[in-house]
Amino acid sequence: MDTTSRANALSGAKLVGRFRYLRQNKPGLKSFTQQNLPMNVTLAQAETIIAAAKKKATEIDTKMDICVVDAGSNLVAFARMDGAWIGSVDIAIKKARTAAWFMMDTQALSPLVQPGESLYQIEHSNGGLITFPGGVVLKNGDEVIGAIGVSGSVVENDHAVAEAGAAAFDISYQGQSTRA
Amino acid sequence: MDTTSRANALSGAKLVGRFRYLRQNKPGLKSFTQQNLPMNVTLAQAETIIAAAKKKATEIDTKMDICVVDAGSNLVAFARMDGAWIGSVDIAIKKARTAAWFMMDTQALSPLVQPGESLYQIEHSNGGLITFPGGVVLKNGDEVIGAIGVSGSVVENDHAVAEAGAAAFDISYQGQSTRA
Amino acid sequence: MDTTSRANALSGAKLVGRFRYLRQNKPGLKSFTQQNLPMNVTLAQAETIIAAAKKKATEIDTKMDICVVDAGSNLVAFARMDGAWIGSVDIAIKKARTAAWFMMDTQALSPLVQPGESLYQIEHSNGGLITFPGGVVLKNGDEVIGAIGVSGSVVENDHAVAEAGAAAFDISYQGQSTRA
Amino acid sequence: MDTTSRANALSGAKLVGRFRYLRQNKPGLKSFTQQNLPMNVTLAQAETIIAAAKKKATEIDTKMDICVVDAGSNLVAFARMDGAWIGSVDIAIKKARTAAWFMMDTQALSPLVQPGESLYQIEHSNGGLITFPGGVVLKNGDEVIGAIGVSGSVVENDHAVAEAGAAAFDISYQGQSTRA
Repeated sequence: MDTTSRANALSGAKLVGRFRYLRQNKPGLKSFTQQNLPMNVTLAQAETIIAAAKKKATEIDTKMDICVVDAGSNLVAFARMDGAWIGSVDIAIKKARTAAWFMMDTQALSPLVQPGESLYQIEHSNGGLITFPGGVVLKNGDEVIGAIGVSGSVVENDHAVAEAGAAAFDISYQGQSTRA
Repeated sequence: MDTTSRANALSGAKLVGRFRYLRQNKPGLKSFTQQNLPMNVTLAQAETIIAAAKKKATEIDTKMDICVVDAGSNLVAFARMDGAWIGSVDIAIKKARTAAWFMMDTQALSPLVQPGESLYQIEHSNGGLITFPGGVVLKNGDEVIGAIGVSGSVVENDHAVAEAGAAAFDISYQGQSTRA
Repeated sequence: MDTTSRANALSGAKLVGRFRYLRQNKPGLKSFTQQNLPMNVTLAQAETIIAAAKKKATEIDTKMDICVVDAGSNLVAFARMDGAWIGSVDIAIKKARTAAWFMMDTQALSPLVQPGESLYQIEHSNGGLITFPGGVVLKNGDEVIGAIGVSGSVVENDHAVAEAGAAAFDISYQGQSTRA
Repeated sequence: MDTTSRANALSGAKLVGRFRYLRQNKPGLKSFTQQNLPMNVTLAQAETIIAAAKKKATEIDTKMDICVVDAGSNLVAFARMDGAWIGSVDIAIKKARTAAWFMMDTQALSPLVQPGESLYQIEHSNGGLITFPGGVVLKNGDEVIGAIGVSGSVVENDHAVAEAGAAAFDISYQGQSTRA
């Protein structure tokens, strides 16, 4: 998908809709939220997430840096697979923090930060954002309670590994995964 | 409006003209300035501005980070609405500071920072600028005495909330608002 | 109190004891925590805190910068009183963040960071700490859910104003204040 | 031990001698080094180290941030125990990096950075050092191939937990631990 079509795929109007959606409690999840689950991802959950991400990375023959942060964007766990790029340490951390800071996957930001688009150069905030794919939110029902960031290969692989980590979290934590 | 036409809409030459204009005293305001009004927005004014911005943000169903700085770009007041993006704390502050630093709304900078335009990559200065809409200057007559920065939704909403804050300042301070 | 006696007043052993104490649920507060109060200070609470701090600052004839952060050390609200030091903007923020980061009032750190003491030069972490008085934690029962930081006068005044803000929070939020 | 005697306990001259010693191959380890062992700690080793450190932290009733870096001071693995200080995330990382950068435990630096001593204010280098106990080197024979950094309690506990992590590495990797 080129830049223009990606930008069209998530216009400002769609972002508003998405944002509202995230703010609404879906009926089936409302009672879930009322059960008072923790607001932040735990270390045990983060370890489960990282193990699943490593497994996926190995399956697709990549070497990844993997980071899990809490809702406040603070580091919970990190792992660099042997031989993974050193430069991806910071990128994995920034992807996770960016997802947590804005409560959305980093790939949702990619079209909005292109030249001429509404959030152009937002990366200069917060000591540096990463706005390409690989950061994925972790949710307790509708609440974002953390994020995973992955870097070390092409962004499609980075995102796939992050999704695999997040899916393991969904299943272990919520008994189901809504991910593809 | 595409990137090119937006860039044309506020060329470097126009910007210089605009800057000169801001430096001229308009007759009706001259006497106002001569009354020796304070050079910086006060905390009481900043609180009025933030209250109006919060009201507007609620009306349009958004959650915003709102910042007011003085003419020197130093923080005067800040408020993060419950549930607003944490990543927007820094963006709201940087929008307000950028507006104060350059004595113009941040949206006036947007076309000038695009690839090939005259201020391309200016965001690397001053520890990080934000050059998309949401930063609005606060003026005493023709003098910029502060700025408001808002972040937390799409930039159109950010700017509208900043304008609402600035309009409350205009009315309470100067007896009129020239804003839409 | 000189440096040595202050250092003795909070030895490493005492710190361990204090830390354990903070980790224990006090009986009377346990049921309170179980009521599921929010994990982070809200904006309304932060505004109450800042109003009380401003009142105290005025009473003792000082001009203060006042900051409230959440449990994750992210900004919730800020106010600079007219005429307060600009240099104290950052100090107030760093005091609040330091208290939140280490779940203790900044004055508890002061003796430990002196030359020859165990945490000497800890200020180089986290982009800069402030380890003298003026940062005070905000607690929901035993849980730290935010902090207030105050700067603008001598540290005794800074701390007194921070305490006044925190006391207003205790009373409005918990129906009592345990502060002197 | 007061500042002066601690400073005497590891003078600059002694440090130079120690440094030379570390550069010499001890006979029994020479053949070990010749086996071409990896220059950097692996992720599997880092996970073993962190598991041992967590176990020790739990035994002494503390909550720790634990970091393992490679010989180049780059992050390999990180874990924040639930409830550990957020402010200790950065300190644990900086302790590990400081130990790797200077190929010695951070506590060896403590006396040298005091006022009047030879490395006074070295913390300003490298984007911030932490020079109090809690950073411990990981060695392959005589070669430093990484470091562990621990923060979250008094420095004696931090160091003890770091040592426990490093000891697990020694045993699993080298078949013995020379640590107390």
